[in-house]
Amino acid sequence: METAMKPQHISLDLSKWVLLPSTSTKRKLRDLNGFFADTQATKSILKSGQDPIIYEVYECLQPQEVGHLNLGTTIVHPGKIGEEFYMTKGHFHAKEASSEVYLGLEGEGLILLQSRTGNSECLAMSQGDVIYVPPGWGHRTVNVGAERLAFFFTYQADAGHDYESVQKRGFSKLVVERHGRVQVVGNPRFMTKT
Amino acid sequence: METAMKPQHISLDLSKWVLLPSTSTKRKLRDLNGFFADTQATKSILKSGQDPIIYEVYECLQPQEVGHLNLGTTIVHPGKIGEEFYMTKGHFHAKEASSEVYLGLEGEGLILLQSRTGNSECLAMSQGDVIYVPPGWGHRTVNVGAERLAFFFTYQADAGHDYESVQKRGFSKLVVERHGRVQVVGNPRFMTKT
Repeated sequence: METAMKPQHISLDLSKWVLLPSTSTKRKLRDLNGFFADTQATKSILKSGQDPIIYEVYECLQPQEVGHLNLGTTIVHPGKIGEEFYMTKGHFHAKEASSEVYLGLEGEGLILLQSRTGNSECLAMSQGDVIYVPPGWGHRTVNVGAERLAFFFTYQADAGHDYESVQKRGFSKLVVERHGRVQVVGNPRFMTKT
Repeated sequence: METAMKPQHISLDLSKWVLLPSTSTKRKLRDLNGFFADTQATKSILKSGQDPIIYEVYECLQPQEVGHLNLGTTIVHPGKIGEEFYMTKGHFHAKEASSEVYLGLEGEGLILLQSRTGNSECLAMSQGDVIYVPPGWGHRTVNVGAERLAFFFTYQADAGHDYESVQKRGFSKLVVERHGRVQVVGNPRFMTKT
């Protein structure tokens, strides 16, 4: 089977950061219901009839098998829900022995990283910043700038996504704007049980 | 062990395309002795005391274990040996179930791809071109422009490199300049035995 799949050429649009061909996913606020700390703010925005796009993913998906790599781009729009900046849902990989590589393309981001045992890290990502997410670290990307945040990623195609742990327990840190400044603060509702 | 390794931040210099921190390798013509078709041209350049740098690799190497990804940048300088453009040695991965992702950063390149059974493909790579090299395909990058060619790459850290098959058998295609044009031609010395 090994060479049954031909090499692929994919085009990255250098102004829109869209990959062609790719599978696209738009995550709106409704899809992130329960992910932002300020659930009241989420509810009232949705109640008012708004449902802003928080982020977009353009992904070139390979067979979910050992040996393949998925690749894609993510665009996180600028904005806040309450005091918390727009961000991705965040996930652990279902398969522990898998990792991820990010390359910052545009904008100003922070990556929240978290181990299953509650250790956390926070790394900045702008254009030209490369982040290596080793096995075992959950990851969430936050747009802390006024413009869109865009980055390129690759990870093992058989890694799988565990969004549930994040939805249940949250991340231990939140990235918020307070007194006009970006701050990484403890999440009072984070559950440390593994 | 899984979270023993902390997430890493690496800086990509957007003018030099060097990664910091990284392990750097400079491949000079002497290191590519036997890889270019025109062995006489290689010999006479080396005999004259010259030994030009053909390409440079800046790599962030992880433990050679399942689950990790290596990442890096490659810069192929412009030039020719005889009629053949400067290129990387090219390799298969020692572990068949592994792949590679390229993202073109600058310059004008061609990627020669080849299966173990002799099938071949050739894809163009400039800034914003993403190439997916699926399992089983050997790959070599050729600079067909007048300026340097630079690209970003990731692959499974346990993939390993098989340069020997390429050194012994060559690639089935050569990328040459003839009559002032870039041409992909058959390699008369390619051995099709697997």
